[in-house]
Amino acid sequence: MATGTLLVMVYRYKVTVTLGILIYMDLFGCQQFTFPFKAPSNCNVEEFFDISSLSCAKCGPNQRRSTTLSCICKAGYQTITTDKASVTCQQCPTDKPAVTKDGFGCIRCPGSLSDEGECQCPQGSILEREVNGSLLDEATCETCHGKDTAFSVPNGGGDCERCQATFVNTSCACNPPNVLAGGLCFPPSGLSTNVNPSVSYSQLKFSLQSAWFVKHLYSSSAACLVFSNLTACQALGNMCVMNMHSFSGTSTDACGLFNTIFRSKASLSSTQDISYRGNLPWLYYGEEPGLASRVLQTEPVPIGFSFRGKNKNTDIKLLAAVYNVRGEFLRWEQVGGGNLQLCPETTAKKVAAFSFGTAYQQSCDLSVAELLSTPPEPLFYDVFMDLGGEKSQELLPLPTLIYNQQYNGRFINQGMKNWYLSRRIFLVDTLSGREKSMSSLPKVIRVASSIKIVFDMCVIRFQLVPRTQEGKVFPPLMTVTYRDVPITDVNTQTVSATFAVEYEMDQNEARIKTDTALGVMGGVAVLYSLLKTVSWKRRISSPLIDVETMLKFLLFYAGDLANVFFAVTVGTGLYWLIFYKAQQFVSVLLPLPGQEEHFVTYIGCAFALKAVQFLHKLILQVSVDVFFIDWERPRSKGSRTVPTGEPKRDPSPVSIWRTYFVANEWNEIQTTRKISPTFQIMAVLFFLEVLGFSNLALRDPWPALERSAQAYMPSYSLILRYGVAASLWLCIGLLQIYFTVFHEHFVENKIHQFVDLCSISNISVLLLSHRCFGYYIHGRSVHGHADTNMEEMNNNLKREAESLCGQRGLLPNTDIQTFQVSLTNRLRSQYDRIRESISRQRGGPSRLMDTCSANQFEQNTRAYHTMNHFLGSVIDHAYPEMEYIVKDKLMFERVIGMEFLEPTDKSIFYNEAHSFSDVLFYGNEATLLIFETLFFSVVDLGSQSFVLAAVLTYVQQMIFRLIRNTLGRKNLVNKTLVDERFLI
Amino acid sequence: MATGTLLVMVYRYKVTVTLGILIYMDLFGCQQFTFPFKAPSNCNVEEFFDISSLSCAKCGPNQRRSTTLSCICKAGYQTITTDKASVTCQQCPTDKPAVTKDGFGCIRCPGSLSDEGECQCPQGSILEREVNGSLLDEATCETCHGKDTAFSVPNGGGDCERCQATFVNTSCACNPPNVLAGGLCFPPSGLSTNVNPSVSYSQLKFSLQSAWFVKHLYSSSAACLVFSNLTACQALGNMCVMNMHSFSGTSTDACGLFNTIFRSKASLSSTQDISYRGNLPWLYYGEEPGLASRVLQTEPVPIGFSFRGKNKNTDIKLLAAVYNVRGEFLRWEQVGGGNLQLCPETTAKKVAAFSFGTAYQQSCDLSVAELLSTPPEPLFYDVFMDLGGEKSQELLPLPTLIYNQQYNGRFINQGMKNWYLSRRIFLVDTLSGREKSMSSLPKVIRVASSIKIVFDMCVIRFQLVPRTQEGKVFPPLMTVTYRDVPITDVNTQTVSATFAVEYEMDQNEARIKTDTALGVMGGVAVLYSLLKTVSWKRRISSPLIDVETMLKFLLFYAGDLANVFFAVTVGTGLYWLIFYKAQQFVSVLLPLPGQEEHFVTYIGCAFALKAVQFLHKLILQVSVDVFFIDWERPRSKGSRTVPTGEPKRDPSPVSIWRTYFVANEWNEIQTTRKISPTFQIMAVLFFLEVLGFSNLALRDPWPALERSAQAYMPSYSLILRYGVAASLWLCIGLLQIYFTVFHEHFVENKIHQFVDLCSISNISVLLLSHRCFGYYIHGRSVHGHADTNMEEMNNNLKREAESLCGQRGLLPNTDIQTFQVSLTNRLRSQYDRIRESISRQRGGPSRLMDTCSANQFEQNTRAYHTMNHFLGSVIDHAYPEMEYIVKDKLMFERVIGMEFLEPTDKSIFYNEAHSFSDVLFYGNEATLLIFETLFFSVVDLGSQSFVLAAVLTYVQQMIFRLIRNTLGRKNLVNKTLVDERFLI
Repeated sequence: MATGTLLVMVYRYKVTVTLGILIYMDLFGCQQFTFPFKAPSNCNVEEFFDISSLSCAKCGPNQRRSTTLSCICKAGYQTITTDKASVTCQQCPTDKPAVTKDGFGCIRCPGSLSDEGECQCPQGSILEREVNGSLLDEATCETCHGKDTAFSVPNGGGDCERCQATFVNTSCACNPPNVLAGGLCFPPSGLSTNVNPSVSYSQLKFSLQSAWFVKHLYSSSAACLVFSNLTACQALGNMCVMNMHSFSGTSTDACGLFNTIFRSKASLSSTQDISYRGNLPWLYYGEEPGLASRVLQTEPVPIGFSFRGKNKNTDIKLLAAVYNVRGEFLRWEQVGGGNLQLCPETTAKKVAAFSFGTAYQQSCDLSVAELLSTPPEPLFYDVFMDLGGEKSQELLPLPTLIYNQQYNGRFINQGMKNWYLSRRIFLVDTLSGREKSMSSLPKVIRVASSIKIVFDMCVIRFQLVPRTQEGKVFPPLMTVTYRDVPITDVNTQTVSATFAVEYEMDQNEARIKTDTALGVMGGVAVLYSLLKTVSWKRRISSPLIDVETMLKFLLFYAGDLANVFFAVTVGTGLYWLIFYKAQQFVSVLLPLPGQEEHFVTYIGCAFALKAVQFLHKLILQVSVDVFFIDWERPRSKGSRTVPTGEPKRDPSPVSIWRTYFVANEWNEIQTTRKISPTFQIMAVLFFLEVLGFSNLALRDPWPALERSAQAYMPSYSLILRYGVAASLWLCIGLLQIYFTVFHEHFVENKIHQFVDLCSISNISVLLLSHRCFGYYIHGRSVHGHADTNMEEMNNNLKREAESLCGQRGLLPNTDIQTFQVSLTNRLRSQYDRIRESISRQRGGPSRLMDTCSANQFEQNTRAYHTMNHFLGSVIDHAYPEMEYIVKDKLMFERVIGMEFLEPTDKSIFYNEAHSFSDVLFYGNEATLLIFETLFFSVVDLGSQSFVLAAVLTYVQQMIFRLIRNTLGRKNLVNKTLVDERFLI
Repeated sequence: MATGTLLVMVYRYKVTVTLGILIYMDLFGCQQFTFPFKAPSNCNVEEFFDISSLSCAKCGPNQRRSTTLSCICKAGYQTITTDKASVTCQQCPTDKPAVTKDGFGCIRCPGSLSDEGECQCPQGSILEREVNGSLLDEATCETCHGKDTAFSVPNGGGDCERCQATFVNTSCACNPPNVLAGGLCFPPSGLSTNVNPSVSYSQLKFSLQSAWFVKHLYSSSAACLVFSNLTACQALGNMCVMNMHSFSGTSTDACGLFNTIFRSKASLSSTQDISYRGNLPWLYYGEEPGLASRVLQTEPVPIGFSFRGKNKNTDIKLLAAVYNVRGEFLRWEQVGGGNLQLCPETTAKKVAAFSFGTAYQQSCDLSVAELLSTPPEPLFYDVFMDLGGEKSQELLPLPTLIYNQQYNGRFINQGMKNWYLSRRIFLVDTLSGREKSMSSLPKVIRVASSIKIVFDMCVIRFQLVPRTQEGKVFPPLMTVTYRDVPITDVNTQTVSATFAVEYEMDQNEARIKTDTALGVMGGVAVLYSLLKTVSWKRRISSPLIDVETMLKFLLFYAGDLANVFFAVTVGTGLYWLIFYKAQQFVSVLLPLPGQEEHFVTYIGCAFALKAVQFLHKLILQVSVDVFFIDWERPRSKGSRTVPTGEPKRDPSPVSIWRTYFVANEWNEIQTTRKISPTFQIMAVLFFLEVLGFSNLALRDPWPALERSAQAYMPSYSLILRYGVAASLWLCIGLLQIYFTVFHEHFVENKIHQFVDLCSISNISVLLLSHRCFGYYIHGRSVHGHADTNMEEMNNNLKREAESLCGQRGLLPNTDIQTFQVSLTNRLRSQYDRIRESISRQRGGPSRLMDTCSANQFEQNTRAYHTMNHFLGSVIDHAYPEMEYIVKDKLMFERVIGMEFLEPTDKSIFYNEAHSFSDVLFYGNEATLLIFETLFFSVVDLGSQSFVLAAVLTYVQQMIFRLIRNTLGRKNLVNKTLVDERFLI
């Protein structure tokens, strides 16, 4: 570089012929060095393209461009020197006006001159212009001897040569009745020369005269039929394949000729068996009805696949014999490197298609321009399965199904029966659609837009013969769908291409098992629901069977049926997860996406029914009857018989704050749960998305959690996705419950705390979930008074800790404080009567209490005191007509959730620890957990996104918790008369 | 198909020559039709491969295999007929023992017979065996005339032909001093024939004699030098490129010869400018120091890129001139279809590399076997940038940097300066590593394992000239890294290949701006922290500056500095997010991953400092002094002067339940926050992962949230990831706070509720966060008594609602209930003295109260009553020496969080609504929100997983909430003497 200049790019080119072109670009300073773009086609006739400077340069004098890249002498000019890359041309003298073929000499001609300035001889003659390299003065024309025994013709290179073997007759001429076609001379045969060289594009509903067919169809057919030429027969077969194995019935198109020759060969052969093929390729399996299923489903392939262990074998080995369009055999190719896979993809991913058990699908859009830029001649593949073998490698021909094959305008291969199997496929055919010449742009191209290899698993029907059929599959079927693409705008057109490997299995047995389980368990559920309805009837103490009863039964049944569906679907999901992902020999294959529909329906049913049950429970919970019975009596009096009605204004009234405290706590434990719902969501999300458990749901047999970014990712199986998500959700839920039990036992239990609080605050709680059934928490303080100051409270607590006082139980010397209660009708009626006076005023729209009139206040307060006194008295056995007994519940009663004794005479108090949590979220953890599992799964199945499912599940939890809290609080305010402002 | 048989596959082949082979496979029943695998190479010498049956078939009699696919007559046998694909052979008579070339005739020879049974002539002669096609009886040998003017030699086809132009001298012989090389005859030139045909593999530290170089190096050099042959010069250049533009200095290797010829051409030319190139390709830019930066950074490319608007231009158009290894120019290619991209990928993705602004990187492992199966000859690319242009398309040559170029064993292109730029690259070279012959397996292959195109943005330094430089880039640099792969095991070896397009920009200015902002704000933060320290000193009423003060200062400073770091990083993140994703003309480019390190450090600092602040606040909160002042006095007495010391046993003591209720509520609002932390996480996750906001962090200029699965996904930018995550977190947090304010105003506010509760329950709360500073909630009931029954409570509430009673405020006729208090030292000392008696006993390990002895109980209770009385009296102005005044805080005091007046004489009560939430989570929402934002971002930056970040943030929140609740409850139990069992 010259110093002192920035970016000096002196660019110079000099042709050392007579004319030198000097391009001198001196771009000083800051400007970039650029130069104009020239392509060889941009150069004009007297220029050539200089590949060093990438520009056009002028040819020397008397020269013209030969190719785009160099110059030669004009016609009539002989070349003198070619030294040092320069060419010197000189005009030939007039007496020797012709230039010799090598361009260096001038010569006289016996005849005329050609356009290129060379001598011409008549046809059948060769030009002699030299002897042992020395030029003659005048060229001579010699006629080739065309008769026996020479049979020679000019070979185009200046010599006589023996004519093509088929011409050798009496002379080298091909005279009628012989037929000249494709450079061969055919003796008369049965084949009419009137062939139909059209290719039909049934998708586009037109056909065209293909240049390739015009040129080669008759000659290939004739050469195959007459000379039994191997490549000609293959070429004919290829033309039939390019015509989509047409069944048109006309005998003059490619397939018609193929079949004609096939039949004539078969009739010539010694056996009359029509499966005789001669030199013809194998294109058709035959038209017998039922042949396809016999070929595909009679006997398994004699190799077994297994996923692990020392006999691990998951390689699907396919071989393809590759022919070019001319019928020449090119090579054997191992299928897998991407020869059938048109989409660009890394080898690692392409190879995954041939790992048994991995559902493979790869799609892409191919640019038509790119397809056209590859050589136009299609390759033809005969695909075989490599069975291995000890002595010799055995091959199994793969039957092929052309999915959109038509026969009289009907798609014959899209139904389930009477497939017409065939063989030999191609991927891209840009040749047959060329109409005028082989180098023109095709009008149509045909692409194998979908290639699908389907493995069908042998179902082991006889369990008596175990392990012999394991891992066996029927011969795989290759389904090819061709697409006809009319060429309109090459640069923007695309065509989609798909390559897929699928595995299917007869799922009827599994389906029947599932349905049987559903049926049986559904029946049991009917009984259980009936039992629940009966129990409910008894608890509301109504013997009539009315519409409400039917409705209740349906509601109960919804819940039970939801459980049945849930159990069956989770079981199925786990079954597939375990059996598919952990099997050694291949014995089960996943249901295909289409076969998963039933499963998804079941999940949908489970979810809908569970939602009904959940809402039902929610409504019941927010309408439960609650009353806090305050045992505290004013100290100054010392007597417990407070007269009903107007309480006396007394200087030290019993403080309401304990009731407020208990109500506040009761309000707080409404939505307490055994599990932390948010932790549940986070943990599931962590396992699925961070630890990669979602990879277990991929459609391949590998139970690996981590997948490399380079590896092929199959699609997800909905069943496996559900299996993973639901079982993970349940597992984490159960683990949480387990740890909660542990935690509650040793650290803190909200329910226990509430019962303790009742005891300490001298307040009992009566909960009526049904008309005549409910729960009772006995909270009478063992110290008599709870409404006291800190010293006394602390003393009380201390005395109790040191067991210096009585036990807290309802019965003397017991500490059972929580009961289920079955009330008599009489008791309930009395309860209702007192309650009525409250509810009459508060039945309207809920208003803040301070908007009520003073009158209502007083009435309410009176009712509250009446109720307090009434219930206290009942518990204290003060009313003989409303007596009650305490007993244990029978084991069986507990199991079926129903009481055998009817409380006709006396109410019954059952010892049931903490069963009152049934009216809280806490006691319905199972329902909530299953509902959330189903919610999560349903959202995931709909959106295929665990994150979205997690977010929506969280929102759902939040909304229902809010609803439960709000309505629960309203209910509490209505039923206990505690001001809403204390429930914070 | 024969009826009655399943899968009858009668497979038969018959060669209609004399010998027919009959393969009859009749596989009845269920067995699959299979056949053994044969490849053409498996057939033995007397067999040919039958392409129809894909098996080996025997040749006819007297025949041998010619190619693998057909048979011909043995040597010495003439072909009689070739009719109908059969060949008949017959031995030649002994008098005419030789077979003619076409195989159909027998002839006598003038000389000897060749191995193939044909006649042989001496060298320089041609064989004449026929005249005009008729065979002679005996062939003759004719010598070609090699002298002037014929200059002919046998052409191998049986004719004499003019010898190659370079041989034409006196005869066709190339005699010394002329040199015969590569089929050409070179006259003596300055070039020594002693060239070094070795290729050096510096990565493997060895070199080998390449067969290609042996054959072509001298001839190419000579043809280039002597004949100025265009292709020869290119071929020589290509050899230099294959030798990695070596700078070895020896003049006999490819690059040495290239340079020698270059210099000699330059010296021949009229100008002495060394940039003259002759016919040689452009390989080197030159060795001047500083040339690289001049080439790359002087002047921008004269096209502007813009991302949107009507001048949208994001296409990077690159053109490549493609040469083959022989030096022939093949074509112009548009770079982008994948010619430089070795990894298989769909076109849509490959094209994304050339969309300006999209950081592109595609890597894969290529199988060596596949590389070797492609044609061995490498292609060479000269890459240009297409600048477009109205008249003519202008091209800009792209400078290339060979990253691992060595010069005397030193990597000269890996530093920042003095790069040696070059041009012309290849992708895969499997040719030069072939040692013995061109068809042998190469010992080494060389692959361009990394190609990186780097665009360097022009930084607009002069804002006075706007919009002229916008979207301008400097000439892109193409960096190529070659890798030498020694061939050991072809089938398992892989080599990685990467193609990347990067965009860089001088980030110093941005860096300086960031650092300036940090410095300035850090300085302000020092002042603010100093102020806080002073305020703190005043609040603890200690004038000494000791180690604790320093520590406090540092803690305050940590928090403020964290805010500074946070503000700067969020600002930077948002800046990039907005300016990069929304710019029309390209004016900023993202920092490269390497340039992001500082940013990540800043975030780390912000997080660490924020964590310190958060822990500090947490510790302060769980050690705050609390006391509940109960105003309730026993009703029976009516007097308020309860004597200190032993309280009288009185029949209706003041119930402690109101205190329990208030303590319980206080315990519950400890961790109440303005936002719902879980909702926050879920919302952020929803936006990022479900709505696709994470796609905003991709390194491309498109602000689209949804990306199609087919489209290219660039890598993530850490800065953008942080920008998106942090701003989303903050936005959702602020939105939540906004809605919380709304919700609290109209529906429910836990803090208000607590204050109301205090009023209703007749209990005041004194909180002392510092020794002499704290908060006071005035809760004296306006009704005198709160310890009453339901009627009275309801009446009280009603009266208050109807404004029939006084206001709740501390001062008469005000309703301000919450204050900040600055206590005098005297008051605090008194407080401490009373408190001492409690803390002395409870200072040990926290035990349940019921394990304490009765003595301690009593003492505690006494202390409680004393404290209650003392504080009540102070509030009631009962102690003149502990008087207080109530005043408003000044605006400025509020802003800087410091009181100007020192409470020397009187305590000061400032009217500050609800500021007591400072000792709760509620009042520190900003700190918590920022801490969580940083926690989320730090986890995400470390793991690049938003889901993991969300899960861990949730866990972190859970843990800190648990810690806060547990310690807070312990503190409450210690300070207020409320039994832990009531804090549920």
